[in-house]
Amino acid sequence: MVTRLSHFFLRTLREDPADAEVTSHRLLVRAGYIRRQAPGIFAWLPLGLRVKAKVEQVIREEMTNAGAYEVHFPALLPREPYEATGRWEEYGDGIFRLKDRKGADYLLAPTHEEVFTLLVKDLYSSYKDLPLTIYQIQDKYRDEARPRAGLLRGREFTMKDAYSFDASDEGLDASYMAQRDAYERIFQRLGLEYVIVQADAGAMGGSRSEEFLHPTPVGEDTFVRSAGGYAANVEAYVTPAPQPLPFDGLGEPVIFDSPNTPTIQTLVDHVNAHLEAPAPGIAGPATDGATEWTAAHTLKNVVLALTHLDGTRELVIVGIPGDRDVDDKRVEVAFAPATVEPATDEDFERHPLLVKGYIGPWSETGPVLGEESATGIRYLLDPRVVDGTAWVTGANIDEKHVHTLVAGRDFTADGFVDVANVREGDPAPDGSGPVTLARGMEIGHVFQLGRKYAEALGLKVLDENGKLVTVTMGSYGIGVTRILAIIAELNNDDKGLIWPESVAPFDVHVVATGKDQVAYDLAAQLSADLETAGFDVLYDDRPKVSPGVKFGDAELIGVPQIVIVGRGAADGQVELWDRRTGDREVVPAAEAVARLRA
Amino acid sequence: MVTRLSHFFLRTLREDPADAEVTSHRLLVRAGYIRRQAPGIFAWLPLGLRVKAKVEQVIREEMTNAGAYEVHFPALLPREPYEATGRWEEYGDGIFRLKDRKGADYLLAPTHEEVFTLLVKDLYSSYKDLPLTIYQIQDKYRDEARPRAGLLRGREFTMKDAYSFDASDEGLDASYMAQRDAYERIFQRLGLEYVIVQADAGAMGGSRSEEFLHPTPVGEDTFVRSAGGYAANVEAYVTPAPQPLPFDGLGEPVIFDSPNTPTIQTLVDHVNAHLEAPAPGIAGPATDGATEWTAAHTLKNVVLALTHLDGTRELVIVGIPGDRDVDDKRVEVAFAPATVEPATDEDFERHPLLVKGYIGPWSETGPVLGEESATGIRYLLDPRVVDGTAWVTGANIDEKHVHTLVAGRDFTADGFVDVANVREGDPAPDGSGPVTLARGMEIGHVFQLGRKYAEALGLKVLDENGKLVTVTMGSYGIGVTRILAIIAELNNDDKGLIWPESVAPFDVHVVATGKDQVAYDLAAQLSADLETAGFDVLYDDRPKVSPGVKFGDAELIGVPQIVIVGRGAADGQVELWDRRTGDREVVPAAEAVARLRA
Repeated sequence: MVTRLSHFFLRTLREDPADAEVTSHRLLVRAGYIRRQAPGIFAWLPLGLRVKAKVEQVIREEMTNAGAYEVHFPALLPREPYEATGRWEEYGDGIFRLKDRKGADYLLAPTHEEVFTLLVKDLYSSYKDLPLTIYQIQDKYRDEARPRAGLLRGREFTMKDAYSFDASDEGLDASYMAQRDAYERIFQRLGLEYVIVQADAGAMGGSRSEEFLHPTPVGEDTFVRSAGGYAANVEAYVTPAPQPLPFDGLGEPVIFDSPNTPTIQTLVDHVNAHLEAPAPGIAGPATDGATEWTAAHTLKNVVLALTHLDGTRELVIVGIPGDRDVDDKRVEVAFAPATVEPATDEDFERHPLLVKGYIGPWSETGPVLGEESATGIRYLLDPRVVDGTAWVTGANIDEKHVHTLVAGRDFTADGFVDVANVREGDPAPDGSGPVTLARGMEIGHVFQLGRKYAEALGLKVLDENGKLVTVTMGSYGIGVTRILAIIAELNNDDKGLIWPESVAPFDVHVVATGKDQVAYDLAAQLSADLETAGFDVLYDDRPKVSPGVKFGDAELIGVPQIVIVGRGAADGQVELWDRRTGDREVVPAAEAVARLRA
Repeated sequence: MVTRLSHFFLRTLREDPADAEVTSHRLLVRAGYIRRQAPGIFAWLPLGLRVKAKVEQVIREEMTNAGAYEVHFPALLPREPYEATGRWEEYGDGIFRLKDRKGADYLLAPTHEEVFTLLVKDLYSSYKDLPLTIYQIQDKYRDEARPRAGLLRGREFTMKDAYSFDASDEGLDASYMAQRDAYERIFQRLGLEYVIVQADAGAMGGSRSEEFLHPTPVGEDTFVRSAGGYAANVEAYVTPAPQPLPFDGLGEPVIFDSPNTPTIQTLVDHVNAHLEAPAPGIAGPATDGATEWTAAHTLKNVVLALTHLDGTRELVIVGIPGDRDVDDKRVEVAFAPATVEPATDEDFERHPLLVKGYIGPWSETGPVLGEESATGIRYLLDPRVVDGTAWVTGANIDEKHVHTLVAGRDFTADGFVDVANVREGDPAPDGSGPVTLARGMEIGHVFQLGRKYAEALGLKVLDENGKLVTVTMGSYGIGVTRILAIIAELNNDDKGLIWPESVAPFDVHVVATGKDQVAYDLAAQLSADLETAGFDVLYDDRPKVSPGVKFGDAELIGVPQIVIVGRGAADGQVELWDRRTGDREVVPAAEAVARLRA
């Protein structure tokens, strides 16, 4: 049935919504696709719902092709399964929790690993039942601290989440690849460029994990890639540890006065003014051949405060080369599920041995940092701080530093932690050359969960020998509403949206103009013919609306093919208007269907 | 693509689920359509999801035919709109409430009147934009006190809810009829018998309201209908008040001893034993011509305790003929949004003038019941207690009653209330004859909301004269998951489900049996041919599963057409099996597609 704009539920807006931070949000609201209901929570209007259904259909078809079966879970789920896997607590403030009238705890599920696991446990019992991949397309909830960017980071969002179940690791690999391949096909069909990057296993627990990122300068994720094919998001980048260096020929630690040098830059300026040039090779490969002191010669000791799930607060000190900063996202991943913040003045007051601006692992009277040290504070080192590297660092005395402090000889730590920021030119861990940095938006995530959930929830099957084995699982997510927003973000101009054909709300937008009934009759006939030919047609039949307003609406709404039926109607002429290229061409109405089909 | 049972996510169960109270629940779980997640909360397995999608498709098509446009609202909504209409409080324990991380109040919406109203207010401003009907098919939540009967009364359920917006009452009537007509087509297409009954406006506030009930002895709703065409649910039945009677010739009230008669039956026995037979016409039409005393001559005064929304408790006394009881549902509707329970011993202790078992409106020293009486308790009368009717009732003295107590002469009340139970033979209020009682299940509800929501939320449009007028609304609901359960409830036998074609999960279930590869080859070919011909095919290709198990599963699953490919396969023969009639017929495989199409 032809959809007529005179009756359709649509109102385009002239003004941008006040809270729109990104183009997709601005245009989807202005063109009447979505409306905000609460922070990060939207209603879908008819146009938006049509696009969403088309995105879902592409996903559904490729899930079917990949042998996955569709199910549907409720958003409201009981606490117990999430308690069993620890996620009830791990999610912290990040999920919505509620109680029913009897006081039982529930959550609005952010993902469904637990209940999919229980469902399979409930119904399947033999390796013969596997492999199995099941999925749903469902509305999920996360209580984001800062919902923003419209659909890109909402509190309610639609996801396709699939879960695979296998009796063996090889089986998991195959199921994983089937989903990974399906994702490639989905993004190709949706016209979405993507990069597959290694991702951190993070709070989900598990082993192999890759993200599909759409590369774009406005992406909120940073990833690295090498010419040799390495790609990872920054959280997953693993710093290759350099070889340890011999201690031979290294002098003894020397404490020196460094008045007023609480920052790395003031310290570097000071040592260049007051110390001899560094010995070649000092502080390891990153500073090789340096003829003057640089930040890379210094060891910066950053005090972090962790809050563990049980509410306890722990200070941790991270030692990284002074030319790098601690990367917030890498820190978050490294210490998850604890939350991390910089130490506060109060934290320092509680630890009088920490001399702010002059902290270091060593003192003449013994170690200062580390669980076995004077402070007892856990001390973790950047992987670059290998044995035999010599550093300029704090001497734990106000306005004093120490140089020629050698790792492995003069100080040790409780372990390593890889949380320094990643930079252009850093080496790919697989030896495929230096990396470049780029930004992207996450559009999909494939993940080998392994046996974490199956173990926590007791999902076992009998193997060929009649022995119970724990099932191994994968989880695979695509943010449906997020993808829709990204497509909108990529497909627009200053006039409005320009949908790719695969997800356009309508195939053709017919616009009748003028006051001549002939034009309206011809447009109605053409619309009906197009529907008969299999097109979804939006017909702007509004009387008493100016051509300018109609054209403006057509441009804003963004149906890729527009047909204008106006002045030429009396002669049986219509105008085909390609929304993307802007090309217009007058053709006989009788040929319009064939032309649009081609 | 043919769905093959060897890979499909399905496990049928031999045992009935322990908590299944009704057939639909039992069979939908056993046949692998749904699984319980929490009380009243279910997951949908692939078979169930397919049936649900078909039900939704029928509804969608008829909504489109009725000119309604589809939108989609979140389940999670902020408190404010529901606060503005008073429903945040009115719903009491019946909804799920929660807070986000910032402490803001949210609910899981049980219906969406408020946000639909605000959406239209947000976008529309002129009578020219109307009429408008928009709908969604969406998962809703109610925190039912006693979720039960599987999908029939869940806490999560899918509903189609539509809302109409009009500038005039005539417009609302037309929009209402369009939805009502669509409902008739929907239920006809789904093969669901229905009766349209008048319903009470209830907590939704509004005027015209009708329910679509599916008549069935196991229905939880009671409705009445007359041969003359009247139909209403018991909550909506309005008792026709008889004409008042003259006081002429009626004697004075007489107090009499009635030892040990706290109940109506003991009282009736007592008066028949000790008093003269009643005068003809006494107590009004219901007792005309009685030659002995009956319960209908007595006036029963029932003490109810209301709890108002603000938490205050109020006693109310209802005077009804002693041959009737107070109907719980009618009481609930009459006093909504207050909740009602019988008065407790404590209530009686607080009102020493109430002599339990002997309560009446009158005493020799003045009125006992009513806001202006000695007790000050609000007193409401059944509509049958018209002026001039004479009653036997309590004398407010232990073991004493009074007779010839005449309404309108000896006692009055604060008003009338229509809460007595309805009985077979009661008159239809429209004069269309006596009613019969029947039971049914609600499958749809159409409702003229009027201006309640538009007023509360400020939805006005400019009329033809440029004046702001408040919009008038309707709301129209169908329980999608409920309907699915009712269809299952109606279409089954002792072997399992038998789906109507319109909603069957597959069109044809092909079963290959035996160990002969020929049968499997032929079955695979036939399945592919059927798919090509447009059928959705479930193909049971499981090796090493006995024919008995396969047939049992086919009967349990309930696809209406089954094709058995077994022993005759070598000769190109297959067997068509009609699941509903049980008829089996051997036909050449080459004819099977044509036969199934017919």
